[in-house]
Amino acid sequence: VRLHDLPTPTLWVDLAALDHNVDVMAAARPGRSLRPHVKAFKSTALAAHVRDRGGHDAFCCATLKEVAGLVASGLGDDVLLANETLDRDRLGDLVAAATERGARVTVAVDSAETIAAAADAATNGPLAVLVDVDVGLPRCGCPPADAGRLADDARAAGLEVRGVMGYEGHVVGNPDRTWRIEQVEVSMALLRAAHDDVGGDVTSAGGTGTYDLHQWVREVQAGSYLLMDTAYARLGLPFQQALFVQATVISASAGHAVADAGLKAFGMDHGEPTVEGCDVFFTSDEHVTFTWSEGHTGPPHVGDRVRLLPAHVDPTVAYHERMWVIDAGDPEGGGEVVDAWPVDLRNW
Amino acid sequence: VRLHDLPTPTLWVDLAALDHNVDVMAAARPGRSLRPHVKAFKSTALAAHVRDRGGHDAFCCATLKEVAGLVASGLGDDVLLANETLDRDRLGDLVAAATERGARVTVAVDSAETIAAAADAATNGPLAVLVDVDVGLPRCGCPPADAGRLADDARAAGLEVRGVMGYEGHVVGNPDRTWRIEQVEVSMALLRAAHDDVGGDVTSAGGTGTYDLHQWVREVQAGSYLLMDTAYARLGLPFQQALFVQATVISASAGHAVADAGLKAFGMDHGEPTVEGCDVFFTSDEHVTFTWSEGHTGPPHVGDRVRLLPAHVDPTVAYHERMWVIDAGDPEGGGEVVDAWPVDLRNW
Repeated sequence: VRLHDLPTPTLWVDLAALDHNVDVMAAARPGRSLRPHVKAFKSTALAAHVRDRGGHDAFCCATLKEVAGLVASGLGDDVLLANETLDRDRLGDLVAAATERGARVTVAVDSAETIAAAADAATNGPLAVLVDVDVGLPRCGCPPADAGRLADDARAAGLEVRGVMGYEGHVVGNPDRTWRIEQVEVSMALLRAAHDDVGGDVTSAGGTGTYDLHQWVREVQAGSYLLMDTAYARLGLPFQQALFVQATVISASAGHAVADAGLKAFGMDHGEPTVEGCDVFFTSDEHVTFTWSEGHTGPPHVGDRVRLLPAHVDPTVAYHERMWVIDAGDPEGGGEVVDAWPVDLRNW
Repeated sequence: VRLHDLPTPTLWVDLAALDHNVDVMAAARPGRSLRPHVKAFKSTALAAHVRDRGGHDAFCCATLKEVAGLVASGLGDDVLLANETLDRDRLGDLVAAATERGARVTVAVDSAETIAAAADAATNGPLAVLVDVDVGLPRCGCPPADAGRLADDARAAGLEVRGVMGYEGHVVGNPDRTWRIEQVEVSMALLRAAHDDVGGDVTSAGGTGTYDLHQWVREVQAGSYLLMDTAYARLGLPFQQALFVQATVISASAGHAVADAGLKAFGMDHGEPTVEGCDVFFTSDEHVTFTWSEGHTGPPHVGDRVRLLPAHVDPTVAYHERMWVIDAGDPEGGGEVVDAWPVDLRNW
């Protein structure tokens, strides 16, 4: 089966590009010095591929469903919910499942309420926490000065405190590498101060845009590097675009063409998808309307296949049921279909 | 079960607001003078509700999956794929299924290629077409002057030509009603000219923003009016917001709060979701960070539930597995859960 045999729109992964990305990262941050972030791809099959090829066996998640899916798939050797939750019932169920499977679950906490939820869930089995520290991104995380007190409260509630995390999400996407280097230093000074008060052997931070700028933390949380998108491409990182949406030109006129992939196939918060060599005019629910420059090979024809590049990987993948895995080395018919990885961790 | 008993984020429908919208539209455009557009809600359960309460039994779709789902659910009395397709195999399967179930399927065509695909599928059973005409939105649709020739070609290929459609999508969202009235006239003059050449008794156009501005066409294609969003709210239409995402405040500081619904819960092409009485600062994959004004009832607390309004209904619904149907009349616990409607028509 060839890529062009599949109905469109089709989310697909260039396996060679993915493996290049796995290898580059595994060389830079081997083993547990990287904690691949599952939120970027939401697939246990892809997580297993990263573990087997890249040698990383400790994962990072943004939702309870992601954690539960890893645990159920035997990928729970050391899985971190790098997010706050107050859902005692589901966290408790997760701890029970992890205990049964010998998995190790850690959850971020940043308040008395999230510590109480974790302590409640820990009545079902072992559950560790990281104290989540605000290192400059105005989102979750306690003020650095409160971290020690929260760690004491967590220990008093019977929880194991493994250390600290602090995500410099305001830094990871900035194309200015010098600024990123400076800001990682600023953020990590805050996290280091918090860690002095918290203790524990885990220090966790970072993302794809800062993966090689962290000397101090034990582990970097990066996920987008695997599949990439046009926003991260602007940073000049050594990772290749590995995720595409294949579409069919369903209508064409003298001035524009329309392909059958739209707002329900792409996360749009970082802007329009890209059609190589063309200008995207606008995107509708099930359509992308685009024009082409004089230098282009010529106007597209009805029935042509076009390859679109997402602007933001995470919310793009979350729209799809599966990713088709393509060996693009033999480009006939768009490449050979070698596998299909369900996006089994989407939704909540 | 109450809304607040459900895990978050949760997509939910205010049943009273939905029914208000159904009733207002059914009074304005009864029966087959409205062709509800399934792309806005992607649920056969909601389509059945609209048919039973609103009395509309002819539906409109944007994807083959939507059409196939309606046919399989007994909602295929007169279903239109208001979009072009070149997927002969899936269209052929659909025609076979429709024939077996006594359903009637019509598909839009705007080129020799889409007519050929329809003619090929029609070897499996009856299939009618509408000639899709460009009435000013630069997307699908043939030039008005080509419509008669395409109709002749379709008839020569053995297809029933039921008439014309032309979507004035560049008009429906503009808040200036006077401009919308003028532009509908301009667009419908083009469609009328095409219809003179095509013939047939179906003339189909419009959307939620122009549902009451069409005197000439037989049927209006509107779907967003059922659930609404903050973009359409700006038009001052008599429809109420009926779709919400419930989230939990998982982190709060002196300056901002964070709830657990983000980019994977909202279509973002029309902008940020709204938190009533608050200012949304930014949205991340699984978070919305917001601030509150002095006039607000006070800072949110960790564990509070907040209600978010989507900016664009269609790509928001497409992220979710189901909509919870809520009787909000008794507001205790956020209202009573009366049903759950699967978003069974999402993906392709």
